[in-house]
Amino acid sequence: MAAVADTRIKVGIVGGTGYTGVELLRLLSLHPNVELAAITSRKEDGLPVASMFPNLRGYVDLCFQTPENAPLDQCDVVFFATPHGVAMNQARELLAKGVRIIDLAADFRLQDTKAFEKWYKMPHACPDILADSVYGLVELNRSKIAQARVIGNPGCYPTTVILGLLPLLEGGRKLVDTSHLIADSKSGVSGAGRKVTVGSLFSEDSDNFKAYGVGGHRHVAEIDEQLAKIVGAPVGLTFVPHLVPMIRGMFSTLYARILPEALDTDFQALFEKRYANEAFVDVMPAGSQPETRSVRASNQLRIAVHRPGGGDQLVVLVVQDNLVKGASGQAVQNMNLMFGLPEGTGLQHIAVFP
Amino acid sequence: MAAVADTRIKVGIVGGTGYTGVELLRLLSLHPNVELAAITSRKEDGLPVASMFPNLRGYVDLCFQTPENAPLDQCDVVFFATPHGVAMNQARELLAKGVRIIDLAADFRLQDTKAFEKWYKMPHACPDILADSVYGLVELNRSKIAQARVIGNPGCYPTTVILGLLPLLEGGRKLVDTSHLIADSKSGVSGAGRKVTVGSLFSEDSDNFKAYGVGGHRHVAEIDEQLAKIVGAPVGLTFVPHLVPMIRGMFSTLYARILPEALDTDFQALFEKRYANEAFVDVMPAGSQPETRSVRASNQLRIAVHRPGGGDQLVVLVVQDNLVKGASGQAVQNMNLMFGLPEGTGLQHIAVFP
Amino acid sequence: MAAVADTRIKVGIVGGTGYTGVELLRLLSLHPNVELAAITSRKEDGLPVASMFPNLRGYVDLCFQTPENAPLDQCDVVFFATPHGVAMNQARELLAKGVRIIDLAADFRLQDTKAFEKWYKMPHACPDILADSVYGLVELNRSKIAQARVIGNPGCYPTTVILGLLPLLEGGRKLVDTSHLIADSKSGVSGAGRKVTVGSLFSEDSDNFKAYGVGGHRHVAEIDEQLAKIVGAPVGLTFVPHLVPMIRGMFSTLYARILPEALDTDFQALFEKRYANEAFVDVMPAGSQPETRSVRASNQLRIAVHRPGGGDQLVVLVVQDNLVKGASGQAVQNMNLMFGLPEGTGLQHIAVFP
Amino acid sequence: MAAVADTRIKVGIVGGTGYTGVELLRLLSLHPNVELAAITSRKEDGLPVASMFPNLRGYVDLCFQTPENAPLDQCDVVFFATPHGVAMNQARELLAKGVRIIDLAADFRLQDTKAFEKWYKMPHACPDILADSVYGLVELNRSKIAQARVIGNPGCYPTTVILGLLPLLEGGRKLVDTSHLIADSKSGVSGAGRKVTVGSLFSEDSDNFKAYGVGGHRHVAEIDEQLAKIVGAPVGLTFVPHLVPMIRGMFSTLYARILPEALDTDFQALFEKRYANEAFVDVMPAGSQPETRSVRASNQLRIAVHRPGGGDQLVVLVVQDNLVKGASGQAVQNMNLMFGLPEGTGLQHIAVFP
Repeated sequence: MAAVADTRIKVGIVGGTGYTGVELLRLLSLHPNVELAAITSRKEDGLPVASMFPNLRGYVDLCFQTPENAPLDQCDVVFFATPHGVAMNQARELLAKGVRIIDLAADFRLQDTKAFEKWYKMPHACPDILADSVYGLVELNRSKIAQARVIGNPGCYPTTVILGLLPLLEGGRKLVDTSHLIADSKSGVSGAGRKVTVGSLFSEDSDNFKAYGVGGHRHVAEIDEQLAKIVGAPVGLTFVPHLVPMIRGMFSTLYARILPEALDTDFQALFEKRYANEAFVDVMPAGSQPETRSVRASNQLRIAVHRPGGGDQLVVLVVQDNLVKGASGQAVQNMNLMFGLPEGTGLQHIAVFP
Repeated sequence: MAAVADTRIKVGIVGGTGYTGVELLRLLSLHPNVELAAITSRKEDGLPVASMFPNLRGYVDLCFQTPENAPLDQCDVVFFATPHGVAMNQARELLAKGVRIIDLAADFRLQDTKAFEKWYKMPHACPDILADSVYGLVELNRSKIAQARVIGNPGCYPTTVILGLLPLLEGGRKLVDTSHLIADSKSGVSGAGRKVTVGSLFSEDSDNFKAYGVGGHRHVAEIDEQLAKIVGAPVGLTFVPHLVPMIRGMFSTLYARILPEALDTDFQALFEKRYANEAFVDVMPAGSQPETRSVRASNQLRIAVHRPGGGDQLVVLVVQDNLVKGASGQAVQNMNLMFGLPEGTGLQHIAVFP
Repeated sequence: MAAVADTRIKVGIVGGTGYTGVELLRLLSLHPNVELAAITSRKEDGLPVASMFPNLRGYVDLCFQTPENAPLDQCDVVFFATPHGVAMNQARELLAKGVRIIDLAADFRLQDTKAFEKWYKMPHACPDILADSVYGLVELNRSKIAQARVIGNPGCYPTTVILGLLPLLEGGRKLVDTSHLIADSKSGVSGAGRKVTVGSLFSEDSDNFKAYGVGGHRHVAEIDEQLAKIVGAPVGLTFVPHLVPMIRGMFSTLYARILPEALDTDFQALFEKRYANEAFVDVMPAGSQPETRSVRASNQLRIAVHRPGGGDQLVVLVVQDNLVKGASGQAVQNMNLMFGLPEGTGLQHIAVFP
Repeated sequence: MAAVADTRIKVGIVGGTGYTGVELLRLLSLHPNVELAAITSRKEDGLPVASMFPNLRGYVDLCFQTPENAPLDQCDVVFFATPHGVAMNQARELLAKGVRIIDLAADFRLQDTKAFEKWYKMPHACPDILADSVYGLVELNRSKIAQARVIGNPGCYPTTVILGLLPLLEGGRKLVDTSHLIADSKSGVSGAGRKVTVGSLFSEDSDNFKAYGVGGHRHVAEIDEQLAKIVGAPVGLTFVPHLVPMIRGMFSTLYARILPEALDTDFQALFEKRYANEAFVDVMPAGSQPETRSVRASNQLRIAVHRPGGGDQLVVLVVQDNLVKGASGQAVQNMNLMFGLPEGTGLQHIAVFP
């Protein structure tokens, strides 16, 4: 334990002006083992970070730097809080210097480069590094993450859907009809990031509710790849994301039809057992109806398992804060694992209520 | 048409202090054929209605009266914007005076009195009147409504679910698996009414999203009864309602599995044809993703039909304003029919955007 | 009156893709004397207006056109719902064809072209037309507006501040210290328009409150010019605008110190008398505390007059919907006057509550 | 310092079901020197605290207890997060057992018992204890607080108004006209607490802005008493509170007229100097426009000083989180002082952004 207390991790952040970037700063600037060494933004070069994000006044003294001037190659780990396509172009050089990489975008999420190309409209820049990278869902890949040099941090929707279905699918279980899974997901607006579009304006999203991407969403490819790997065969998933007029929070309502031979299963027990030792996955008591605010600004993900009327339709409810467990918090959880720290270091935040 | 212009309807409202009551006032006070004759509230007896609802200043001069003092029996029609159980106890007396009744609560929605008793925790007070009443979903029961003396105005959720599934189920069609229908519904907070509960406080609902009633919701009985009637046999429906941090608006995402023999169906055309002559049901172009704000404060209900990936999972999206098409607007639409007026009289409001 | 019913006004709208544009469409498409003839948008040329704004489906059949193709010169009146600087460059040509102009931007609000140049960073393109234009605050300039060919439709903030102070200042009255007036104003986010900026994103404005423009705001020049004209001498005004996390609504809290010789004034009576005949200015009963929602989506402006503790500090509270009385509704009110119609034609909307 | 690390404070909370109560729990359950010993609620006796507030799952194992059963007299300090009037009736007994008291309600805020009686409609139960209590505004009364046995934790509005005016008034300074101060304040809805009233419903407060208490608000008495004490003479203050549709956050816009002889004052420097050593008062750089979200869920209060147009009107902008610095955070700050801990212990939370 003395060793842990002594661990100092030099951290760089590429692209610190978006929501996952500022959330990383909120978490890392109070992390006991982290030294923030550099944060880049080509556009805001020279600007004190706390001028853009006044919540950090007194906690972060860094200024934004251009990637060229920032001492990224002297860091132990670099987080990419950038648009898709940035990390994969800078990975090789950093790895050569011994820097580890955690990408919060999609560059290292999909092993299927054709799916990547289809959904992200660009060829993959480093398939060899990708092949060596690890999908950073801790509850699924803990031991691999501890050894990884490159982490593809999961997408926010996939985190809820995969963790919400995992106990039903893994270990060769035949419990539900895997060809007709449904994920009806709802996200707060910060999930769309800080880029300016009409669709993210207050006057467009407030007092409104809508579906989007019904015809197809990038995260389906990611979920499909992971679920197929868990099951050992392709699955059929209908995924409908919706936009909720709230800043943070994600809610997935998952529907799975129980197979006739599995009707006697105690699903509550199954979920409780699977996640008994997971600090950041909370299987709530039977009958619970989780709310997104119960995880606001915390790294917690909560699950409730329902079977309305006792029939053959299983309903799993999953909540998380899309910017924490769904992005930056999970990224820090990965970092902790990679550097031998207790997984929850720097992540002991109680959700802000109300 | 001259006759129509001459029609004067004397209207009474019982229980005008809730959200459906004030919405009735907004719609009826500008209705060209309506004379507001009385509005009751035992608690607010004597108070000018416009003192409680300043939006009505200059439009409504009435004061609240006790039911005893209000000239309800001299009205042509009385709307009940009351808690469940009020209308059924006053119906007989009013009917005897020739007054027609439109109940916005549940007293005349369920023909199955056992289901009523189970969900509303009270015996039905007048089964004979109930048997004679009509379920006021205009697009389903137009001709019966025109002749009705008592209308059970549909619940808000049922309006979206029934209209969203109707074209798939009626006429003996075998298009989808009716034993595993799913309605994932989302409502603005005004759906819970104006009664004071912790669960309806701003600080509880704002910046939050949650499911509720997963174990069972009153509206399931109503939907089940209507769908069974349409299909001619019981259906299986999983209904999960959610609460959205917005005042008005309701969104239902409906999932139905297409039967193998129906995979060639043109569902877009099916819906368009069914509702071609309906003024208040708008089947949007293929690929549309409706938003609740597109119907805010209007009587419009909009539907979009999707089939993600061209597979066997049909996804129907339905939006309405829960206080208008889902309650008071639909009630006025019923009144127009009952008195021989053009159905849209007084309901030509364009949704408020943004 | 027969003449009025026969009046047909051909209307064009330049720049219909912003919030004041779509609000004009909501109001004008139901206006009994208006024929919508053209709506322009260079960027959206050819797109059906109702595709961009689904709330208009069934009410507006027009497509956007480029200004070159749109029959603006055949209109009776053209509304400019454009950025500042557009109307003044198209005014001369339209006027030559006999088309009247109502500009919802600032081109014809300030007679002081130096102030215009200072705040809007461009020289005025047509000072002669400006000199002939009328400031379109109906309650102040009713008779001039009826004769005007060009209207500068007031800014949203100025509408609340001027109407809130007018009874105190006009007619040579010496009631309050005009050298130290304070307007602490609060606006919903739609006041910033539909242009995309980080500052207007949902995730930036929701669950947040801030002041902006404390060092100086364009509307100060406009208010100053009008108040000076009313008083007959320059006034001193401190104006601090704030941003409220709501879509529509504007609230101004006005502070004026009562002069010693005026302490006996009955301010409530003064305001009531001044606005007794104004359909769209509602002086509420003494002690009232108006809410912005009491005018949501309506052309009403409400005022309450307070004198806390009976001292020498007068507090005037003013609410309006910034997009209606503060913009598009007021513009329609101006149009009605210009074409001899009853002032409230097409503006009989009851505020949407809740 | 070793002593500090060893300090263990046994803490009791009376009335833990409201917003200040759950906020105390969020802060105290992670406080390194605190042992939560008891939390009372007569109504929720026996219920696990984390059942009511799921954000505390895994952090707080306590159940609510009745006041009779709770070991309050064995605590080192008891926080009262109760309605006004509770603490003063339990104070004597607890003090006799050596328990210190921090009251988050108004029982120990006003030394003027007549003012207390006027505003809170009850006689004071223990004027002798009141006389001995300390007004817990740390930046004003630090040394007295360290010695206090009973703390009256300041109201949320007074915290912003007093700290925003303090540098102008203390030390016998003659800088502004103290007879005509104005505080135009705006609060998030959580300031009204968790009690159920129509006025706190989501559908009443969302998408709305209003003033309230214009005729007089309890907090005026508290502000008046403190300012008079600072100045050494009565002051004249006009205070207008407003309600903002957000959960947390408070913003006060303060107006003070600069005296002719003080026009040369460097007010920015004055404020910076006054608060240079205060960890939780942040005087922002000249020209700053603070936002409430910059302090969301943190104990920070930020101030910006403006002088629009360089004239004689000073405008001071103050933001805080009403539940932290305006209530529970400030209470913990007081506790730290009372027990000899570094003032910021357990209060190092970075504001949640976005």
